[in-house]
Amino acid sequence: MAGHPSYDQLTAAFLRMHRLDHLQQIVSWDQATFMPPGGAEARGAALGEMAALLHRLRTEPQLAALLESAEAEPLDDVGRANVREMRRAWRRANALPEELVREASVAASRCEHAWRTQRPANDWRSFVPNLREVVRLARREATLLAERAGTGRYDALMERFEPGITSREVERLFGAMKTWLPGLVARARARQAQAAPIEPVGPFPIAAQRALCERVMRLLDFDFASGRLDVSAHPFSGGVPEDVRLTTRYGEDEFERSLMGTIHETGHGRYEQNRPRPWLGQPISEARSMAIHESQSLSFEMQLGRGRAFVGLLAPLVVEHLGEQAAFAPDNLARLFTRVRPGLIRVDADEVTYPAHVILRFEIERALIEGEVEVDDIPALWDEKMAQLLDLDTRGDYRNGPMQDIHWPSGAFGYFPCYTLGAMYAAQWFAAIRRGAPDLDAQIARGDLSTVFGWLREHVWLAASRYETDELTRRATGTSLDAAHLRAHLEARYLA
Amino acid sequence: MAGHPSYDQLTAAFLRMHRLDHLQQIVSWDQATFMPPGGAEARGAALGEMAALLHRLRTEPQLAALLESAEAEPLDDVGRANVREMRRAWRRANALPEELVREASVAASRCEHAWRTQRPANDWRSFVPNLREVVRLARREATLLAERAGTGRYDALMERFEPGITSREVERLFGAMKTWLPGLVARARARQAQAAPIEPVGPFPIAAQRALCERVMRLLDFDFASGRLDVSAHPFSGGVPEDVRLTTRYGEDEFERSLMGTIHETGHGRYEQNRPRPWLGQPISEARSMAIHESQSLSFEMQLGRGRAFVGLLAPLVVEHLGEQAAFAPDNLARLFTRVRPGLIRVDADEVTYPAHVILRFEIERALIEGEVEVDDIPALWDEKMAQLLDLDTRGDYRNGPMQDIHWPSGAFGYFPCYTLGAMYAAQWFAAIRRGAPDLDAQIARGDLSTVFGWLREHVWLAASRYETDELTRRATGTSLDAAHLRAHLEARYLA
Repeated sequence: MAGHPSYDQLTAAFLRMHRLDHLQQIVSWDQATFMPPGGAEARGAALGEMAALLHRLRTEPQLAALLESAEAEPLDDVGRANVREMRRAWRRANALPEELVREASVAASRCEHAWRTQRPANDWRSFVPNLREVVRLARREATLLAERAGTGRYDALMERFEPGITSREVERLFGAMKTWLPGLVARARARQAQAAPIEPVGPFPIAAQRALCERVMRLLDFDFASGRLDVSAHPFSGGVPEDVRLTTRYGEDEFERSLMGTIHETGHGRYEQNRPRPWLGQPISEARSMAIHESQSLSFEMQLGRGRAFVGLLAPLVVEHLGEQAAFAPDNLARLFTRVRPGLIRVDADEVTYPAHVILRFEIERALIEGEVEVDDIPALWDEKMAQLLDLDTRGDYRNGPMQDIHWPSGAFGYFPCYTLGAMYAAQWFAAIRRGAPDLDAQIARGDLSTVFGWLREHVWLAASRYETDELTRRATGTSLDAAHLRAHLEARYLA
Repeated sequence: MAGHPSYDQLTAAFLRMHRLDHLQQIVSWDQATFMPPGGAEARGAALGEMAALLHRLRTEPQLAALLESAEAEPLDDVGRANVREMRRAWRRANALPEELVREASVAASRCEHAWRTQRPANDWRSFVPNLREVVRLARREATLLAERAGTGRYDALMERFEPGITSREVERLFGAMKTWLPGLVARARARQAQAAPIEPVGPFPIAAQRALCERVMRLLDFDFASGRLDVSAHPFSGGVPEDVRLTTRYGEDEFERSLMGTIHETGHGRYEQNRPRPWLGQPISEARSMAIHESQSLSFEMQLGRGRAFVGLLAPLVVEHLGEQAAFAPDNLARLFTRVRPGLIRVDADEVTYPAHVILRFEIERALIEGEVEVDDIPALWDEKMAQLLDLDTRGDYRNGPMQDIHWPSGAFGYFPCYTLGAMYAAQWFAAIRRGAPDLDAQIARGDLSTVFGWLREHVWLAASRYETDELTRRATGTSLDAAHLRAHLEARYLA
């Protein structure tokens, strides 16, 4: 391509970083799935070295000049959008010294690894010093990033996951939700108390669950030539677009968790598998944001997966793999999959109580990063908010309380809001899809998922990072993010 | 450490490279075990980028000056040995331009990946163009390395795996072997023809074989907190010392291959797991050479594993996992595990005919790298030598002929001699162990493997790269490599 030599040099540099990041992604997946415990320390050091190296590449002095001259070169829209994303990545990377990046990576690896045994042991005391170090480094990162971006400190960490949003906006959205969510939870529970679903009877052999999960991934068009499903303590979607690594977890006593978890991760996985191939390696090809990512997993799990039409497709597959029983009748399964039950564990929460878990974490981690509270204050805050929001007593139960999530031990402060923002986006996507296809449920019921996948592919997957989040949302649905869609969805499913 | 600032800078630089190499090792393991086919192209590009990056670090200009000044600093013996190994690594890396390293990595990834489907399809024609490219780049590497080292081209490639040996020496050792090996094969076969062992009756469920293999690895003191056993088409030992990744392969029709293959890889694995921890990250901690590495796998599989005393320990474990049958009586198992049967496949060969496979490959690949023959000449050479050495007809059977090994598609020319050199070293180790413990077989028979493991740990594992190979051998056994030990071992086991 003539006429933009600086841009060409930049794309070559970003492609190199992308390739090295590939190794980091696969090794991180391995760390969570197959690595034996004795490998942890060396692995942490190796990933820290790689983090430092990538940081060095992202902050190479010549990038600054190349970015400036590329911004003045005659580029098409795609090139301009790519430079915009390069500039964002460059600005973030250049705010942080290499030593801090390495220290943060090593501290997170150590804390996360120890957490894996500390959590089952309910060992908050041993967890605290590791977490304190992770928080100390996250605060330093936040301070440096905030100075550069001219934002608040927590906002600067959120920007890693959700560029374009502020904690003020999150507070506004979550504050509004707090006014109607408790009432909705109460009304939904009262309604469901009238008729309990038939309980499924286990055990459910793990091999059968695995086969069921893989079968449902195929139903959802997951491409197994470019991906896998494995097991990890904390399910996630990792790997690279050409080789997407999903995980789930199995328990013989129940199957809903592995099945619904797999449907959730498949949403992430299909977004990754369908990122625009011609742009791979460039920042413009990246998933738009983590809220948009969660909007895909929640489109799959909540909008599609727990809806009555899709459950009609699931039921015969459940019977085929786990055997016939009364609980597997479609109507009963749908009731099982939409039970509203306040519980201790975020990842096991139903879609109605889930936002409470997120609001709680958002409030605690925002205060933690802003320096308003300390790690030692977390348990009391947790107990207080769980009592307030979900009327649950969590005192002394660290394992199912503030130690339950991988986010804090791994230093991912600022991520939690994305889950509930994602639920809002997912509801907005499906409202738009239904406007264009009033017979959507009938299509789904007869096994035709093409309208859903076609819409998501066109408006989200192939858009990748071409537009900023708000523009993507307006192009896809005609309006900016509007939380009313989530409320309408919940009311329609749980109160109608 | 005061007094050697250049040495300290060097150790820091090598530690950084070691950590990045950790990622490369794990990702390469993943490529051979779990990666779906759609990930191949991106993976190849990622590994090529990493190879280029490591090459850049190994050839950073300041290393030259640091090496010179470190060589003049007051170092202890360990430091001096470490600098010697650094110098060797530096000399090799600096002979090659980065572009060639990257090209060779990408070509090997591509050839190896395609080979995985071309081999089962017996598709030599499609394999040729890929292999030709791998050979072209290997020849360029060989030429550049030979210029730097002042050796022959094939010798320069062998040095990657076996520093300190020449093809002239290999020819001498292999030439001598050719004079007595065919006779030994014939006499052993005639002797074994007198009484055939009882054949085991399958099928042998794969889950049971896997459990048996893991049980035997525990018997051999493999540390599962720092390693794993998985499955790959071509078994290997990979990973890093803190996290050793062994692979094997299972077939329901027979169990000897997975069991003996696992014992073999466990020898590699224990060498890696026991490399001296305080030195990890430094060149001195590396395994001495690939022949010494193979001497460990062959100590485990051949010297120990197929010996009558050890088979007495194996037999009850085989019964426990695969059920009782006449073939599993210890004497019968020992006869099964020492059957001499010329066959097409190197990795399935018994220890008596195995050297023939190696000699053939050595002769072909040496000529290939020296430019005396071309890729298209390989099948005819293969047919001719297989007929000569093992009296087998291989015409048209590429799959079980020149396409059977991963070495050529992955560009590992110069490796094959290490297998038979390793068998020679292993026989020499056990001759030394027996000199110090005349009751060795009685110890083994009662389950006490401590003499064997203690000797290997002291003389080989913990020595790592502290001494050059010849010095290591003389320190361990009193003499340089002496092929008479292998001959004596084979005659004792097969003709006595």
